[in-house]
Amino acid sequence: MNRQETQRELGAIHQELQKSYADGFGVNLAGADSLPRREEVVTVTAKLLELIFPGFDRAGAYPGAAVLLGDTMRELSDQISRAMRRISGSKCDSCNADCGQKCDDLALKLMQELPQIREIMKKDVVAAYNGDPAAKNFDEIILSYPGVKAIAIQRLAHVLYRLDVPLIPRMMTEYAHSATGIDIHPGATLGVGVFIDHGTGVVIGETAVVGDNVRIYQGVTLGAGNFPKNACGMLIKGLKRHPTVGSNVTIYSGASVLGDITIGDNSVIGGNVWLTESLPAGTKITALPPEHRKKSLNRENNVK
Amino acid sequence: MNRQETQRELGAIHQELQKSYADGFGVNLAGADSLPRREEVVTVTAKLLELIFPGFDRAGAYPGAAVLLGDTMRELSDQISRAMRRISGSKCDSCNADCGQKCDDLALKLMQELPQIREIMKKDVVAAYNGDPAAKNFDEIILSYPGVKAIAIQRLAHVLYRLDVPLIPRMMTEYAHSATGIDIHPGATLGVGVFIDHGTGVVIGETAVVGDNVRIYQGVTLGAGNFPKNACGMLIKGLKRHPTVGSNVTIYSGASVLGDITIGDNSVIGGNVWLTESLPAGTKITALPPEHRKKSLNRENNVK
Amino acid sequence: MNRQETQRELGAIHQELQKSYADGFGVNLAGADSLPRREEVVTVTAKLLELIFPGFDRAGAYPGAAVLLGDTMRELSDQISRAMRRISGSKCDSCNADCGQKCDDLALKLMQELPQIREIMKKDVVAAYNGDPAAKNFDEIILSYPGVKAIAIQRLAHVLYRLDVPLIPRMMTEYAHSATGIDIHPGATLGVGVFIDHGTGVVIGETAVVGDNVRIYQGVTLGAGNFPKNACGMLIKGLKRHPTVGSNVTIYSGASVLGDITIGDNSVIGGNVWLTESLPAGTKITALPPEHRKKSLNRENNVK
Repeated sequence: MNRQETQRELGAIHQELQKSYADGFGVNLAGADSLPRREEVVTVTAKLLELIFPGFDRAGAYPGAAVLLGDTMRELSDQISRAMRRISGSKCDSCNADCGQKCDDLALKLMQELPQIREIMKKDVVAAYNGDPAAKNFDEIILSYPGVKAIAIQRLAHVLYRLDVPLIPRMMTEYAHSATGIDIHPGATLGVGVFIDHGTGVVIGETAVVGDNVRIYQGVTLGAGNFPKNACGMLIKGLKRHPTVGSNVTIYSGASVLGDITIGDNSVIGGNVWLTESLPAGTKITALPPEHRKKSLNRENNVK
Repeated sequence: MNRQETQRELGAIHQELQKSYADGFGVNLAGADSLPRREEVVTVTAKLLELIFPGFDRAGAYPGAAVLLGDTMRELSDQISRAMRRISGSKCDSCNADCGQKCDDLALKLMQELPQIREIMKKDVVAAYNGDPAAKNFDEIILSYPGVKAIAIQRLAHVLYRLDVPLIPRMMTEYAHSATGIDIHPGATLGVGVFIDHGTGVVIGETAVVGDNVRIYQGVTLGAGNFPKNACGMLIKGLKRHPTVGSNVTIYSGASVLGDITIGDNSVIGGNVWLTESLPAGTKITALPPEHRKKSLNRENNVK
Repeated sequence: MNRQETQRELGAIHQELQKSYADGFGVNLAGADSLPRREEVVTVTAKLLELIFPGFDRAGAYPGAAVLLGDTMRELSDQISRAMRRISGSKCDSCNADCGQKCDDLALKLMQELPQIREIMKKDVVAAYNGDPAAKNFDEIILSYPGVKAIAIQRLAHVLYRLDVPLIPRMMTEYAHSATGIDIHPGATLGVGVFIDHGTGVVIGETAVVGDNVRIYQGVTLGAGNFPKNACGMLIKGLKRHPTVGSNVTIYSGASVLGDITIGDNSVIGGNVWLTESLPAGTKITALPPEHRKKSLNRENNVK
């Protein structure tokens, strides 16, 4: 094609896209500038983390906590407002005179939790230090442990989740998932002193409850068993469908803990366990390894 | 060492590196500015996603579809041209008068698919909504579900893969892999309404075929069984070596489906299943959990 | 709340945070500008990769190896100095007249290894080409294989780890983990020609040793068995607690190899194997698949 034909073709594609956007399916507002955006949600999240541990995660010079606090609240309020207007539309009670004020109040509620979240995160860091022989000092854990980052972000997102802020909480935890491989739904309730080591592949579902001083390794799922459907065959949303894990529980790599079951305090769940029933407190459950076959490749006959 | 010795030593390292670069191994063109680059491929990919769902993924203000369409095609054509010249070298039939035009034509072919890909992605989003009790609305899925992002990028990369564009398709899907933990080779063929939930650790190989309305959970592999080698012991490339999965199939977390086998429509593959043989349509296959041992840590004797 | 009340509330939060920062827990220096920072460590790492394979990973124009070499050394030395001062505090023997010189020397030691690391990485790339039927050419492997990126970064970090540089090595490998899902501790010792395919979920511990021409697939753990504790119940740090894997060994997806055991040369470890005992050279060990149950969903009775 020559340049003119290319231009004509691009014009045709443009028309087709415009027609398609007009269907109103999903995020495609004209201009698209009034939506919450991944980049901006990530930026606000990094600033929130920086307020918990100054030096944690943010690029650029540190402006001081007072400036950072004001900036972060303003930017968070802006993203909340975009999410509210997007989801609630004409039903949005923020869409009137005191709209900005209401979103500011929601943002402020998260800011008010920051000192408390910092206290909890300190216990998470100590739990990591006590749980990992490779951990050299607290700084290393804060600056480089993915579990600390994922849990910190989930604690922030959980506050917004409880305040019924749409879109933003999930965008925050999905940023954590992308950065760490650890997928904790903002709805999950986490205790104090939680440590997730390595973490890649960990999934913790929306209605999961995790107690204090719980240690979780890579590839662990705290997931749903099966999904009840209504008479029309549609999923019923909002039910408790994930496990409740007691305090001082350790769950080793690759274990699946599924359904609305209860794991009693002080229990240990071994690697690759597949658990769909509740456990009483103080139970150690291990999976026998799969049966193995060995043969020598040298002599081409079986050994042992 | 003092400053002068350090400079001398850096000079020596520089000479050694230059000598090493001269071996022509892999990406190390003088200047290195004529290669396709990860950053730029990511930028183009984000713009393509933005054309499918305005507001999806891009930083910065939305310039409008017409401007975005032109920019994206130009930048994509530039990356294709770099890849062509890098891989084809003197054999490259783009390296003549109408080089730019040929790469423009390839880029345009992808642009032409965008409205169609948008239609397919809408079905993917609906599949996610119907498949996940935690999904609140379509916007949330588009803005934060890693499966949607990974699949969208693979659909784009697959178009370029079929057009025999070198390097770029794999760089695109590897960006998706990095962002989501979901590794779908650009060669894989995906049906309509595919939903990958959580997704960390999912691997879908180059010659895999996935039907319509397939649901896949974290840690699932659609992989190769074994790799045939030629008489010289070298891998034979290009054979069909991954599964063909029918429509309306669900594959639960951790399942491995290996080799050029066929999974019939409407089948269900349970968590941690290890499958190396074809399944007839409408089959449910589950893995018995590993044998477990339980003991009480309180009384130090076995329970159950 | 009105604007004034909001400001008052922000002031109260600020005071509470300042009080909390004063506890000196973890990274929270006043100003927070004297710490090593994730962003900057990532930038230096990208430049080091660019010196190994010009065109590998960096954004922006390539400034030429001589300029890049000098810049990278300076920036690395700066990050090392921040880490030293942070961790060693008043005991830091860098904190005197020749501080800068000592950190320059450490940075230079890494620069001196670059030509050697490039030679080793070339063998890694060839191993990937020979091990993956989907690999089209060396360029594709360098530009898009996560295993190559994760291993390259670990090789760089390992040099700093051996030089006892604090914080930076783990920040580098955690960047690799975040980008690839492959978590290799900087303390691990890797041979030549190592290939990690797909890689999501791979964990290789601090004291693991991996031989030459080893191939590892997604979800493999080379981990610790159990953690010895001292008389006070605290973890003993610094012991050899991870496997030693011989040369020409292949470890398939999902296998767990745990504890200070030895895998002899030329061995093959099958998918999902759970191994806690040493293997003699030339052994093939496979896990029998879990027992499966099949039923037809059409006729609702068992098949086979």
